[in-house]
Amino acid sequence: VTGTAPERIRVHYRSAPVAGSSPAARAREIAIEQTAEVPASCIPAALEGPVVGIVESAEADGPDWRAVVSYDVRVAGGELPQLLTVLYGNVSLQIGVRIERVDWPAELVASFGGPRLGPDGLRRACGVAERRPLVCAALKPMGLDPEELARRASRFAAGGADLVKDDHGLADQEWAPFEARVARSAAAVAEANARSGGSCRYVPNVTAPASALARRMRAAREAGCDLVLLSPLVVGLDTLHAVARDEGVGVLAHPALAGAFFGPGHGIAPEVLLGDLFRIAGADAVIYPNAGGRFPFDEAACVSLHRALRRPLGGVLPSMPALGGGVDARRVGHWIDVYGSDTMFLVGGSLYEASDPESATAELASVVRGRTATNDP
Amino acid sequence: VTGTAPERIRVHYRSAPVAGSSPAARAREIAIEQTAEVPASCIPAALEGPVVGIVESAEADGPDWRAVVSYDVRVAGGELPQLLTVLYGNVSLQIGVRIERVDWPAELVASFGGPRLGPDGLRRACGVAERRPLVCAALKPMGLDPEELARRASRFAAGGADLVKDDHGLADQEWAPFEARVARSAAAVAEANARSGGSCRYVPNVTAPASALARRMRAAREAGCDLVLLSPLVVGLDTLHAVARDEGVGVLAHPALAGAFFGPGHGIAPEVLLGDLFRIAGADAVIYPNAGGRFPFDEAACVSLHRALRRPLGGVLPSMPALGGGVDARRVGHWIDVYGSDTMFLVGGSLYEASDPESATAELASVVRGRTATNDP
Repeated sequence: VTGTAPERIRVHYRSAPVAGSSPAARAREIAIEQTAEVPASCIPAALEGPVVGIVESAEADGPDWRAVVSYDVRVAGGELPQLLTVLYGNVSLQIGVRIERVDWPAELVASFGGPRLGPDGLRRACGVAERRPLVCAALKPMGLDPEELARRASRFAAGGADLVKDDHGLADQEWAPFEARVARSAAAVAEANARSGGSCRYVPNVTAPASALARRMRAAREAGCDLVLLSPLVVGLDTLHAVARDEGVGVLAHPALAGAFFGPGHGIAPEVLLGDLFRIAGADAVIYPNAGGRFPFDEAACVSLHRALRRPLGGVLPSMPALGGGVDARRVGHWIDVYGSDTMFLVGGSLYEASDPESATAELASVVRGRTATNDP
Repeated sequence: VTGTAPERIRVHYRSAPVAGSSPAARAREIAIEQTAEVPASCIPAALEGPVVGIVESAEADGPDWRAVVSYDVRVAGGELPQLLTVLYGNVSLQIGVRIERVDWPAELVASFGGPRLGPDGLRRACGVAERRPLVCAALKPMGLDPEELARRASRFAAGGADLVKDDHGLADQEWAPFEARVARSAAAVAEANARSGGSCRYVPNVTAPASALARRMRAAREAGCDLVLLSPLVVGLDTLHAVARDEGVGVLAHPALAGAFFGPGHGIAPEVLLGDLFRIAGADAVIYPNAGGRFPFDEAACVSLHRALRRPLGGVLPSMPALGGGVDARRVGHWIDVYGSDTMFLVGGSLYEASDPESATAELASVVRGRTATNDP
């Protein structure tokens, strides 16, 4: 569009106060640190606009300082690694710098593409016609052999789970090497589907070394899998992007390592890291811990992230919020009231604890089947 | 070796106390969370030894709790992504869990291979015969065109820098696309070497999307580069491993994003993340902020990390500690007394601020050339 400057990436930083400095001076330091990274006196004047971050606002806010620093989209060079670097690379090493929000240029978001499936596409993949939550069971623990993992997958599928995912710790260990266990679990779910007439999807974990990922993706596809699980912070956010864009599969993104970024006064807010960045990179579902489980996410935080994953963003599809980390199967009815239809529930331990995991899965499946969009919050 | 159990990965966790729990119970929770990830009652007895983490010790220590949890090496499956997952994947999402130290099985470390060059190999690559510190200048700011970047590279090389590295924010931006700027900077350094008889190495930043990395590596090699810069936490630790192992180049590892892990009571200690993990993955040099610069690392922390990078570890080479983040060229003599010969000094802004960067580089080079192993601390 001739004559209009490109939109800028506006990053809302919160910073611990720095003795002898001011909110404006601190914001300018961040703006330089993340771009030119030379003393201000060494910055050629011509670079101040298009390259160095611009301090849009800076002010004290209670005990902390806040600043909005904007970056020309060209600084990110159209690449996720450089986008991460400009947002938080060096300032991560300073004290008390947190990204609380990012206003994204629509073209930048659209250029990465976002999810391929989103909530509706995931439901379609699972053969779910009505707009209701999805139930995802989990294969674990590691250490079981492929036969026993497949047996468990079969039971969850027979019980009516919409998806059965690998635990994120199932990799290529000697107890259950990747190709053997994925082929066996996929076949077990396919057989259960054939018996039941269902469309349960088996979701293998493809988090892998760079040199092994292509081989595992091929094995997963050959086993008939069209959805995979990946831990983006373990293998790099751009690996999620590459899989989502190039491999023709849907991706469930696991938050392993993400908690390192969730310090109260330092890091990147879950709404930005899991909510925006995972989604922009192409996560069809983003897994995170539900309130009341084994992790310290409270309901307000879960609702906020749930909203972030579905908010309008550069025209890309929403990601499906996938709540896990200790969801009690008996409480899923309650959580549907809280989150609504566009929710995936990952239920693991709670089904394993049941005397009969298959009928516990069936009970859980009947809860979500009764719910459609009409009762959405 | 028949009859002896494989060594275990012993992880020293520090944890915030949990009301109603005990150090031993909390340690057991961590051990399960990172492996079986099911309620204790659902763990098959046969998996307790080889799969579930073993609590080796657990105790209160002042206001915090400490625990050593050990994992069978097979849990990591010989892969860095799964190693990261088992060390810290899920517990990152809990409150106040920090890895303070890891005792590594020698075979595990050796299986990943570690650095190809280490300090001695880096000196050889730079044509440095005596055992002395290395000086590395930095090309920046982003926004300059390939000609101006090359001009700067030429001046640093002519001044006597041992290495000239790209700023970690130089990617493939339109102002200086990767192939053009790398070819031009490499040629400029080669020409300066031809004039001076020196062996300065130009080190391009190859941090890139997964789909572009191979192409950039090829372009870097075609330009004659045998050392590259990479930000492992931006592209995934295993990408560092793949480049170090498969590409036949030495790697300088940049700490972008690493600070997210350095919260006081949460995360992974620098000695483990930058010291052990970057080294195990193959970093020939590990960049981190020096005391007294723009980052809050004090001298004790810098010395501790310096020591960690060079300590005996599974028979792999040391990594070269590379101190940056605002090193004052005039203080390098002092820092050599602190750190000794096996140190690389990244000097950026301080050379740009000088009225004549080439002679400032020459002065700095003369400081390190006068220093050999005899005065090591």
